[in-house]
Amino acid sequence: MPDRKDVHNFAAGPSPLPSTVLEDAAEGLLNYADTGMGICELSHRGKEFKAVIEGAETNLRKLLAIPDNYTILFSQGGGTGQFSAVLLNLLSAHRLAHPVPAEEFKPPTIDYVLTGSWSSKAYAEAQRLVLPPFPNCPGFATPRIAASTKSTGWTRLPKPEEYDFSKDAAYVYYCENETINGIEFPPASAQDSAYAFPFDLVPEGVNIVADYSSSFISRPIPNIEKHAIIYAGAQKNLGPSGVTVLIVRNDLLVDTTAAAKLGCVPATPITYEYKILAENASLYNTPPTFAIYVSALVLQHLIDAKGGLTGLEATNREKARLLYATLDAAEAKGKLKTVVREKDARSWMNVTFEIVGEGKEKAFLDGAEKRGFKQLKGHRSVGGIRASIYNAVTFDSVKALCQYINEFCEQQ
Amino acid sequence: MPDRKDVHNFAAGPSPLPSTVLEDAAEGLLNYADTGMGICELSHRGKEFKAVIEGAETNLRKLLAIPDNYTILFSQGGGTGQFSAVLLNLLSAHRLAHPVPAEEFKPPTIDYVLTGSWSSKAYAEAQRLVLPPFPNCPGFATPRIAASTKSTGWTRLPKPEEYDFSKDAAYVYYCENETINGIEFPPASAQDSAYAFPFDLVPEGVNIVADYSSSFISRPIPNIEKHAIIYAGAQKNLGPSGVTVLIVRNDLLVDTTAAAKLGCVPATPITYEYKILAENASLYNTPPTFAIYVSALVLQHLIDAKGGLTGLEATNREKARLLYATLDAAEAKGKLKTVVREKDARSWMNVTFEIVGEGKEKAFLDGAEKRGFKQLKGHRSVGGIRASIYNAVTFDSVKALCQYINEFCEQQ
Repeated sequence: MPDRKDVHNFAAGPSPLPSTVLEDAAEGLLNYADTGMGICELSHRGKEFKAVIEGAETNLRKLLAIPDNYTILFSQGGGTGQFSAVLLNLLSAHRLAHPVPAEEFKPPTIDYVLTGSWSSKAYAEAQRLVLPPFPNCPGFATPRIAASTKSTGWTRLPKPEEYDFSKDAAYVYYCENETINGIEFPPASAQDSAYAFPFDLVPEGVNIVADYSSSFISRPIPNIEKHAIIYAGAQKNLGPSGVTVLIVRNDLLVDTTAAAKLGCVPATPITYEYKILAENASLYNTPPTFAIYVSALVLQHLIDAKGGLTGLEATNREKARLLYATLDAAEAKGKLKTVVREKDARSWMNVTFEIVGEGKEKAFLDGAEKRGFKQLKGHRSVGGIRASIYNAVTFDSVKALCQYINEFCEQQ
Repeated sequence: MPDRKDVHNFAAGPSPLPSTVLEDAAEGLLNYADTGMGICELSHRGKEFKAVIEGAETNLRKLLAIPDNYTILFSQGGGTGQFSAVLLNLLSAHRLAHPVPAEEFKPPTIDYVLTGSWSSKAYAEAQRLVLPPFPNCPGFATPRIAASTKSTGWTRLPKPEEYDFSKDAAYVYYCENETINGIEFPPASAQDSAYAFPFDLVPEGVNIVADYSSSFISRPIPNIEKHAIIYAGAQKNLGPSGVTVLIVRNDLLVDTTAAAKLGCVPATPITYEYKILAENASLYNTPPTFAIYVSALVLQHLIDAKGGLTGLEATNREKARLLYATLDAAEAKGKLKTVVREKDARSWMNVTFEIVGEGKEKAFLDGAEKRGFKQLKGHRSVGGIRASIYNAVTFDSVKALCQYINEFCEQQ
């Protein structure tokens, strides 16, 4: 029966967490900070949990150097919930910034950069939510595709000349890391890459939104202030599933009811209004306290580890470099095939590849399972293999996987 | 430093869980079912978690004898999220059931029974979401108050003659247990009470929705089939916060996009569409896996305990009887004041009272704290004392609290 030390967990999310964090959490589950009560049994409005959520916020602000004019929010509903919430809050903000009579209001465009499954889902949700509510009314906004690499089978990022942003968009949306496809924008430290997100091409004043779910806190985000909103589901690098973290520029914490009263914007369910979350320090209604607690432990773990996100960036870069080098070498021998063709566009977090030859994928996965390499199967929508190498996946686990890949390929 | 056995936890939610469940969960956190991985580190689409969520569903269906034509869903966003989701899904269902051209469609009424803070919040949310989206358009629906006890200060339930249901409502909404105010509809086993919910007064065919958050699985619900939807936040009797359970009649699992295309209904964020949740067995996007896991452990604990919900009902009735009898006796001596004036309307789960005399409330709470009686402070919006006596609060804890109340009152 396997122990934690016998297993290398490459799950794409929910994904591995540091063992020391889980040991602390197991203790807190039964008796948190010697209260005689478990963390799940404490009121979210009591002093204990308030210290937990405030500590998480303080540490996250420190780790990511989040500017003062941004608010951190903890929400429910996952990244998918944010596909809706981003649209509802930003259309409301846009409406309030254009307080003309409804007859004179022109529905804005909203620009989506499509680079894989998740950005495509966000775009599909936008199309649903802007439908004209009555047949004699306009739609609430006009979703546009500002760039798309769909025709490549999501195997690369758009080139600079492929972007076409509209001048008056209410916002531009992109997904920093496509977990399913294994595509990631190069880090801000490599803004000279041809594939870096082209902030300079976005017209000045247009809000930029990024889904950072899978790469959040895997490395610094030195260009936060170029974004209006950054959000991330926790269940990759941060903590258990069930909580979503948002970094929202303060001017976008707007009263969606006031916007709705002006007309021409869709209704925002109260749980998805950023302003009400912010005014209540993410405690408008009962939050997912355990998921926030474990996230707080992970953040403290990162603070204590020293080196900060810059140290993590170096480790994560090296983990990815080693794994891709192993795959490229095997690919050169015709044994497997990496999915993302442009090296600059390869995710450091989700490494996707296919095993060449009939029945070989199953053989690879069966062999992996026996050796303790877990959860390597690709997303059901695309198949293949996906090794997710988040913060909690050690260098040793990556090395062991590389060794297995080499052995497997040699035997073919 | 207190241990779990030294503490009596009367939190209103998040609230106490059985120690054996938490011990199992602590183990599962590090190594679930000898996989070498913790429950939070496993894919929600893997066989292990699927067995967890399916087991929870099977056990819940068995415990509550949920009819086959109802689907169980696990959602995020809490009860507050359902204030929005109920409206969006039921207005969509109503629209699809009336597929006339938009010009001929008459916005339906929606009837709310107001008995305290939570039903009032649900009504306020309905008012927000039905606002006319454009100034020359009607609202999406007309929220009505079918009954309200606000003028009594939420100290009783409506009498039968105080209800005024509309004939063509898209739905009737009530809150079975008002956690903040301590008001609960008498159990189905006491339908002869003057305060029982008046199902017979609701026009035939009108959908009835109940927020059962705080009383869920505290006793049987023999009249599920009188409801269209029953929902409950987990963080009372069921598990940690972060998951909401729904019991939805199958004909209400409707395509909200199709309804939106007909026009005259507000847009439904995809995470709040019941049909998409149902089609994906509550795994449309990543669910709060840990909260569902602990809920599954609690449900298994109830199944194993024998006696089922009928046994629990007897225990919970007796716990409430003892505590209210103690309070009534103290009230007769002028030492304190129960909040809910009608005995039939008193919650079995949330017992609210006030200590008479200046500074006495603080003395009561300080003394309670010293003796290990925790989280007795009333909700910040109403003050006073609230003892929540959910399933995991033992008879012995209630007896100990009664003894403290008696001692405190004698010393005054």
